[in-house]
Amino acid sequence: MSDPAAFRPEARAPRGFQDRRGHDVAVERRLLARVTAIYERYGFEPLETSAFEYADALGKFLPDADRPNEGVFALQDDPDAEGNGLWMALRYDLTAPLARFAAQNWESLPKPYRRYAFGSVWRNEKPGPGRFREFVQCDADIVGSARPEADAEIIAMAVEGLEAAGLPRGAAVVKINNRKLLNGLLSAAGVESEGQKLAVLRAVDKLDRLGPDGVRLLLGEGRKDESGDFTKGAGLNAKGIEAVLAFTAAGAASRAETLDRIAAVIGGSAEGDEGLTELRAIGDALSSMGVDEGRAKFDPSVVRGLEYYTGPVFEAELLLEAKDEKGRPIQFGSIGGGGRYDDLVARFTGERTPATGFSFGVSRLAAALKASGRTQEGAARGPVVVIVFDPDHMADYFAVAALLRNEGIAAEVYLGASGMRAQMKYADRRMAPAAVIIGEDERAAGTVTVKDLDLGRALSAEVSDNAAWREGRPGQATIPRADLVPFVRRILAGEP
Amino acid sequence: MSDPAAFRPEARAPRGFQDRRGHDVAVERRLLARVTAIYERYGFEPLETSAFEYADALGKFLPDADRPNEGVFALQDDPDAEGNGLWMALRYDLTAPLARFAAQNWESLPKPYRRYAFGSVWRNEKPGPGRFREFVQCDADIVGSARPEADAEIIAMAVEGLEAAGLPRGAAVVKINNRKLLNGLLSAAGVESEGQKLAVLRAVDKLDRLGPDGVRLLLGEGRKDESGDFTKGAGLNAKGIEAVLAFTAAGAASRAETLDRIAAVIGGSAEGDEGLTELRAIGDALSSMGVDEGRAKFDPSVVRGLEYYTGPVFEAELLLEAKDEKGRPIQFGSIGGGGRYDDLVARFTGERTPATGFSFGVSRLAAALKASGRTQEGAARGPVVVIVFDPDHMADYFAVAALLRNEGIAAEVYLGASGMRAQMKYADRRMAPAAVIIGEDERAAGTVTVKDLDLGRALSAEVSDNAAWREGRPGQATIPRADLVPFVRRILAGEP
Repeated sequence: MSDPAAFRPEARAPRGFQDRRGHDVAVERRLLARVTAIYERYGFEPLETSAFEYADALGKFLPDADRPNEGVFALQDDPDAEGNGLWMALRYDLTAPLARFAAQNWESLPKPYRRYAFGSVWRNEKPGPGRFREFVQCDADIVGSARPEADAEIIAMAVEGLEAAGLPRGAAVVKINNRKLLNGLLSAAGVESEGQKLAVLRAVDKLDRLGPDGVRLLLGEGRKDESGDFTKGAGLNAKGIEAVLAFTAAGAASRAETLDRIAAVIGGSAEGDEGLTELRAIGDALSSMGVDEGRAKFDPSVVRGLEYYTGPVFEAELLLEAKDEKGRPIQFGSIGGGGRYDDLVARFTGERTPATGFSFGVSRLAAALKASGRTQEGAARGPVVVIVFDPDHMADYFAVAALLRNEGIAAEVYLGASGMRAQMKYADRRMAPAAVIIGEDERAAGTVTVKDLDLGRALSAEVSDNAAWREGRPGQATIPRADLVPFVRRILAGEP
Repeated sequence: MSDPAAFRPEARAPRGFQDRRGHDVAVERRLLARVTAIYERYGFEPLETSAFEYADALGKFLPDADRPNEGVFALQDDPDAEGNGLWMALRYDLTAPLARFAAQNWESLPKPYRRYAFGSVWRNEKPGPGRFREFVQCDADIVGSARPEADAEIIAMAVEGLEAAGLPRGAAVVKINNRKLLNGLLSAAGVESEGQKLAVLRAVDKLDRLGPDGVRLLLGEGRKDESGDFTKGAGLNAKGIEAVLAFTAAGAASRAETLDRIAAVIGGSAEGDEGLTELRAIGDALSSMGVDEGRAKFDPSVVRGLEYYTGPVFEAELLLEAKDEKGRPIQFGSIGGGGRYDDLVARFTGERTPATGFSFGVSRLAAALKASGRTQEGAARGPVVVIVFDPDHMADYFAVAALLRNEGIAAEVYLGASGMRAQMKYADRRMAPAAVIIGEDERAAGTVTVKDLDLGRALSAEVSDNAAWREGRPGQATIPRADLVPFVRRILAGEP
């Protein structure tokens, strides 16, 4: 294959896909382990469905309503000579596969069915900086419960999950709204068209970006943006517009006060009242679970992009200040969300099946934790490297590596072909805590020489506040083999 | 959406794909956690590449040589109006993406590069019983070391991984061969054509199924099978045929004896000698790592299907007796394999980059563990279920659930709409250790009633050897709330 004339493919990951190695992977796995431990404590069991679904089962629920047929990676399964085969697509989220699974297995599932899941989802979109076509989500859902307390449990879990992931209290908040409130308000204002309601939702969703004045235009006749493009508005009258804006601004410091303010602006429709009653029950259950106002609050400006939500919606927002490599502040914003979707299972069965859930953007959350410097705990830590001083004595090096491994200490024998210098450099790049050297003298005396590489890194980083630690610690020591394990343990524990 | 005239997709997983829930998922995850802990102890770091690769980077290395263009799920990325776009395909193993990643990042990687990876791989094949189109593999590879000791480390890890997964010693063996031996033997016999060598490999690969007599025909002129179909043979002469068969039968009880017997039959080619020297070094390193003959042995009949192997090849075989649901014995056979592939990175770079690795079939290993009854440890265990006695007191139930959760005990409030009987049935289906009931009396007295469901299950299963345990354990008790956590802990620990 080293034939120079042979075809050589270019070694590159496909456009919009990424590779991750070492510490980055470990950070994300630890995050997932901690979040899912919370989910299990709430009585949720794991589910793994396949990457593919039939396209008809997946449905067209991507937020990008302008390209309803796109956004997924699809192919035809085993097409015949005429090119006819069933279309399959890679899942774009974990909710659509859950709805399919629940519909398929409803009879045999314990009900309500509580499941969590995590894994890759794929979106066939234009990649951009930090925007990939494959990313990891972690979801928890309850299917088969219409109780608002089910929504409250989902929210409580999200709150606990964020803390378990490493975010201190105050670094994130889950904002809660209910679609029924705005629907009720619009009904009370005489707006009944689904299209018009959707246009209102989309307008409100732009509050963050455009502010109330921009949204006011979008709720009315429409808005011309900086480039001169015109977006048609929802066509509400002045009273309707102001009612919607007053509603979105009804958020207050406490959950009870927010509910009072909402009650004052939504008018008196049955649907709006239902929404209020649900939020009240959610608030009560949150309080009995000890989820305070700082971690989960009602916010009528929250919309969520997906069309399939039918009631309460949730959005987890990072409040953490983070900086990029150049020290510029990063706004992370939403790192997850969810809500109640009572119609997704009915797509298959025709029977309304109440369901609610929450989804974390795992990669995004990991990136936020990394940017905020909260992943140092359990920092990158390589194996002890046993140096190959003389290739004629490999067996001896492997015996020493096995000695360490049997005690649960990560260790390896250097397996390249380079000399001492390169081997020490390798050990340092692997973030090895120590290198073990066995030369002629050591072999004759039954000893090993251990180089403390943690100390070397501390010295080169000129960590000034641990002078005492450095004083008490030799950079290198020749010790009996029997002392190797305790010696390395002391280095790993950071003891002098 | 409950419009009866609306289109209703059928709820079904795509053909050849499976859903797995609850305990099955937990078993597989625990297996992966244990195996990868071993890999990390050997100094391997994790890598995650994307599901897609460009088709040219993936190459055509599927074992099914008869359909070189098929076997993968492929699609064109963003095709233009003429239908032209780069072909991408889902990975069919974890080795090809590693080769691409290593070639792409060679300059910045520590060398040798040790990585492990696990995840789904996809094969566009005809599904069958137990044969899925998406399954999980777990791989460890060393890229950049030509040392036979690198192969030995990979083998040692596979051996330790099998034990960590739950297989006792003696339940599995890793068989080792070297492609260079058969190549050398054929060269010594005057066979130089690559096609003929490949035909010999394929014939030897059928030893298990056809026995030496059938393989003798395939090594010579050819063989007509039961259905009358004729398979053309490798065309060796009688002496060559007997030499190959003698070689494949050279396996003996000890590694040293096998090497002696191989040396006696392979003739004296340079390549054969090189193969022998490598196996000797592998055997020495295995011995110094404490991997005895029962767990890793030389076996010249091992071939491995993939063409890209260039030297040592490994195959992990289950020796465990397992039975299916009807009590019939199951032969699991191979549950993993690997070998040295020095040319895969060179496909991209043109420079030979030595590499070796091993891959577990995770789903297969999990199935084997399940069939052999070795997954009982950590059996399915649901949450404590707090019964909804009166929906007006949900807040109280949630407070009790939070009490348990805060102590790390999985708990949930029943969130359906059914009565007591259905709730108890639900708790039992969830394998709940206990149900907590708070009625009027309990609320007034500040107590809770706890039903010991573990005991209930033990009684209904008529477990005869724990009569004493049953005697000492009340099936139900009303206790102060403050005693709830220790009470449930005792049930979870199986204490009377």
